[in-house]
Amino acid sequence: MAPQVTVDSINPKVIDCQYAVRGEIVILAQKLQQEIQAKPEAYPFQEILYCNIGNPQSLGQKSITFFREVLALCDHPAILAKSETQALFSADSIERARKILDQIPGRATGAYSHSQGIKGLRDTIAAAIEARDGFPADPNDIFMTDGASPAVHMMMQLLIRSEKDGILCPIPQYPLYSASIALHGGTLVPYYLDEATGWGLEVSELKKQLQEAKSNGITVRALVVINPGNPTGQVLAEENQKAIVEFCKEEGLVLLADEVYQENVYVPEKKFHSFKKVARSMGYGEKDIHLVSFQSVSKGYYGECGKRGGYMEVTGFGADVREHIYKLASVNLCSNITGQILASLVMSPPKVGDKSYESYIAERDGILSSLARRAKTLEDAFNKLEGITCNKAEGAMYLFPRINLPKKAIKAAEEVKTAPDLFYCRRLLNETGIVFVPGSGFGQVPGTWHFRCTILPQEEKIPAIVTRLTDFHKRFMDEFRD
Amino acid sequence: MAPQVTVDSINPKVIDCQYAVRGEIVILAQKLQQEIQAKPEAYPFQEILYCNIGNPQSLGQKSITFFREVLALCDHPAILAKSETQALFSADSIERARKILDQIPGRATGAYSHSQGIKGLRDTIAAAIEARDGFPADPNDIFMTDGASPAVHMMMQLLIRSEKDGILCPIPQYPLYSASIALHGGTLVPYYLDEATGWGLEVSELKKQLQEAKSNGITVRALVVINPGNPTGQVLAEENQKAIVEFCKEEGLVLLADEVYQENVYVPEKKFHSFKKVARSMGYGEKDIHLVSFQSVSKGYYGECGKRGGYMEVTGFGADVREHIYKLASVNLCSNITGQILASLVMSPPKVGDKSYESYIAERDGILSSLARRAKTLEDAFNKLEGITCNKAEGAMYLFPRINLPKKAIKAAEEVKTAPDLFYCRRLLNETGIVFVPGSGFGQVPGTWHFRCTILPQEEKIPAIVTRLTDFHKRFMDEFRD
Repeated sequence: MAPQVTVDSINPKVIDCQYAVRGEIVILAQKLQQEIQAKPEAYPFQEILYCNIGNPQSLGQKSITFFREVLALCDHPAILAKSETQALFSADSIERARKILDQIPGRATGAYSHSQGIKGLRDTIAAAIEARDGFPADPNDIFMTDGASPAVHMMMQLLIRSEKDGILCPIPQYPLYSASIALHGGTLVPYYLDEATGWGLEVSELKKQLQEAKSNGITVRALVVINPGNPTGQVLAEENQKAIVEFCKEEGLVLLADEVYQENVYVPEKKFHSFKKVARSMGYGEKDIHLVSFQSVSKGYYGECGKRGGYMEVTGFGADVREHIYKLASVNLCSNITGQILASLVMSPPKVGDKSYESYIAERDGILSSLARRAKTLEDAFNKLEGITCNKAEGAMYLFPRINLPKKAIKAAEEVKTAPDLFYCRRLLNETGIVFVPGSGFGQVPGTWHFRCTILPQEEKIPAIVTRLTDFHKRFMDEFRD
Repeated sequence: MAPQVTVDSINPKVIDCQYAVRGEIVILAQKLQQEIQAKPEAYPFQEILYCNIGNPQSLGQKSITFFREVLALCDHPAILAKSETQALFSADSIERARKILDQIPGRATGAYSHSQGIKGLRDTIAAAIEARDGFPADPNDIFMTDGASPAVHMMMQLLIRSEKDGILCPIPQYPLYSASIALHGGTLVPYYLDEATGWGLEVSELKKQLQEAKSNGITVRALVVINPGNPTGQVLAEENQKAIVEFCKEEGLVLLADEVYQENVYVPEKKFHSFKKVARSMGYGEKDIHLVSFQSVSKGYYGECGKRGGYMEVTGFGADVREHIYKLASVNLCSNITGQILASLVMSPPKVGDKSYESYIAERDGILSSLARRAKTLEDAFNKLEGITCNKAEGAMYLFPRINLPKKAIKAAEEVKTAPDLFYCRRLLNETGIVFVPGSGFGQVPGTWHFRCTILPQEEKIPAIVTRLTDFHKRFMDEFRD
C-alpha cells in the first residue's frame, strides 16, 4: 500500500493554524538571501534587512556578559576552581555560578529537574517578583518553560475543551495566540485595540465582544492581554489595567497576561505594572481571580531568544486544577536547565556593589537607550510617508504602521490573488531587501492595512532602512496612486 | 463572580492523560526526602534511592568533558581568543566551538534559529546518520527539538484528528506515548510485547490488533516502536525489524521509531540498527514508507537530560505535509540552541587523532561498561527473589521484572483501593527508600504485575539496593505469602 498520510488526512486543526511571523515573506527572504550569496549582482541590494521578528541577537545585539559568564561556568563547573578562571571571568560571575550550582540537586546541570523547574531558581524568581511588585510571590506558583510559547500552549490545552470555548484576544495580536487556539480547537474571540487612541484597550469593547460570543453559544474562558503590546507597542496605563482586572473578576475569566516585554518601555510617561501587582493592589487575592503571567528570556534588553528560557506565574487556581497543570508540565519532563538558569539571572541581575554591576548597567542601558532611539527614528520616518500613519512605540520591539493603500494597488494585489498588505511587503522585500510582516498575520480592522516592523536592526543600519523604505514607498505610490 | 476554572470545566483530555514516571510514587519519594532532611531518624534509611527515571546525572553520572567544554565556549565565545583559555580547555574543544560558531548565522548563540534548527548543525547530524547507516540522510529532514518528547507530541498532533484515529503502541510502553495520544484525543491501540520471549515483538500480534481496531471503526495511522525498549530493555533483531517495516509499508502506517537508546546496548549478541537503515536496505525509499526516527541527548552514555536536546528525522512525507510539520515547529520558534549544539556533538564526538579522543573514549566506555555491569547485577538479584522473574536488559536503561504477587497481597491492596503493583512499590519506598515505578504506569497484560527499575544508581550503591530490596521482599512475602 502507498503511504497514507496526505494533507487531506492530517489533523485539520494543524491545517487551520497560521503562523505569519515565519510565513511566506520570511521564506521568500531566505530564498533571496541564498540567491544574493550565490550571485551578488542579482538584486539591487547586498543584504536582507530583517525587521520581521523579535530576534535581537540575530541582528548583532550583544549578549549581556555577566549572564553568559555564569552560563559558561554552569556548563563546565570543572573550571570553577582553576586559577586561570579568575583571569577569564568576573569574580561575581564565579560566585553566582557557585551559588546556582548549590541550588541544583547534586549540582547536576545535566539532569532533568523538578517538572516546574529547579526549586532554588524558582525561589530567586519569586523573590524578584516580590521586589518588583511589592506583593508576595510563591516559588510553587512558578512553572519554568522553554520560552513563553510552551507556557501559552499549556494554558490553552488546559482551558479549551472544544470549539465552543472561546479565548478573548486582542486584534492585532501576536500570532502565537491564534495559532495555539487553532491547534487546540478553540475559538478566538477578537477584541479590537483602538488605533486612534494609540492602540487603546477599551473595557466596553471587551464587554461587547464577550456578549456577542455568548450569544453565539461560546463560553469565553480567558482574556489574553499583551502588555507592552505586540505588535502594537503600547504600554497600558494602571487605571486601564484595573478596569481589565475588574472585568475578568466579574466575568470569572482567566487573565492570561503576556508580560514578556516588561523591561522594554521607552517613554518616560509610561511604566510597566504587572497585572498581579495591579490585582493585589485592588485587594484581589488567590480566591478572587485566575491570573497567569508569562515572562521570557527572549525579550527585554537581554534578547536571549535562542536559550528558550521563561516562566509562567500561575495564581488563583484550586489545588486540584494545579495538579493537572503540574501533570502537563511533567509530560515534557522539564524545561532546559540553561534557560532556567538564565531566567533566574534576568530576574536577578548584578546589584550595586557587585563587581560586574557597572559594566552590566552600561550594557543594559546602552541597548535600551539605543532601542528607544531606533523606535523614534523609525516612527518618524513612517509618519513622513504618504498615506502611512504610525503610533508611538511606547514599549516592546515593534511598530505597526497603518498604510492607506491606493485602490489601484489593492486591485493589483487582487489580480495576483494576494492580500494587499502582503502585496506591499513582497514588493518591498524584492526591491529593497527589507522584511516586514503583513498586518493580516496579526489581524486588523477589516479594510485597513498594516505591517509590523521591528526596531531591532542595529542602529547604524537604520538610516539605510529609512532611505530605502522612503525611496521604495515613493516609487510604489507613483505607480499606484489613485 | 467567583473564578470559574475547576476540574469539572477543564479539558477532559488533560484529565484523561496519565504520566506515571512523575506520578504518585515520585511525589511520595520527594515528600520522604524532605522529611529525612528535617528529621534523619524518621525512617530506617538515610537517603532515597531513585530508580524511577532515566536521569543519569541526577544520580551522579558525570557529563562528558569534551561536550561540556564546547558548550561553555559557545555560551561565552569572548574567551575563545584568550591565552588562559588554552590552559583551561582542550585544543579540540576550542577548535570545535569555533567551527560550530561559524555554522551559526552571525555566530549568535542567543538568536532564534531556523525552525528546524541551525542548518550547519543539521548538516553534521545528517552526515553522522549517513556514517551510522550507510544510506544518505538529508539535513532538511532533520527537525531539532527540546528532547524527543516535543517531537513525539508534534507527530501525534499532526496525525490524530479524533478518537477514531488510532496509534499502535507497545504494551508495556513509555507513558509519553499514552499521555500524548490522550492529550491529542486519539486512541491508543495496544500491541503486547511477549514477555516469555524476552519482550518479543510479533508481527502476528500487530496484525491481530490492527484488525481488531479496524473492526471497532478505528483508523490506525501509525505504529510506535521503541528500540531498544523502554521500559522493557530488549533490542530488536534485524529480521524482526524488517518484518515490522514490511507491515508498516503494507498497511500504509507511519513508523514512529523511538531510537533514543541507540547507544545503550549491553550484550555482544545484539546490535542497534536504525529503522531507516533497515528500510533502505530492503530497497524502500521516500515513496514507500513514512518513517520518523526520534533521537535525544538525554540518553546514551551522555545522559544530558537537562539540556533538552534532540531531533527527529522525518522521511517519506509529501512536500505539502512537510510544510505543516514545519509550521508546527515554527509555532514554538525553535528548540534551545545549547541543546542543538549538544545534539550535533553526541552525533559527532571526538575522532581518532583528536586531542580529546582518548579521554573521551575512556569516559564513554567507563559509563557504558558500568551500566552493563549494573544491569546484570540487578537482573540477577531480581531473578533470585521469590516470585519474581526478570528478562535481560539487552539495552536502554531499565529492567521490567514481573512479580507474581500473592493473593493476600492483592487483597490487601484492594482493601486500600490501590493497584497491587503500586501497593508493592509504595511499601518498598516507605521501608527502604527505593523508588520503582509500578508497571500499571506502562501497561501490562491484565492480571500480571511488574515494576520498572532503572540501572542508573551509581555502581557503589547497587549492593545496598540489592540488599535492601532482598530483605524487604522477604519480609513482604513473609507477610503476604498465600
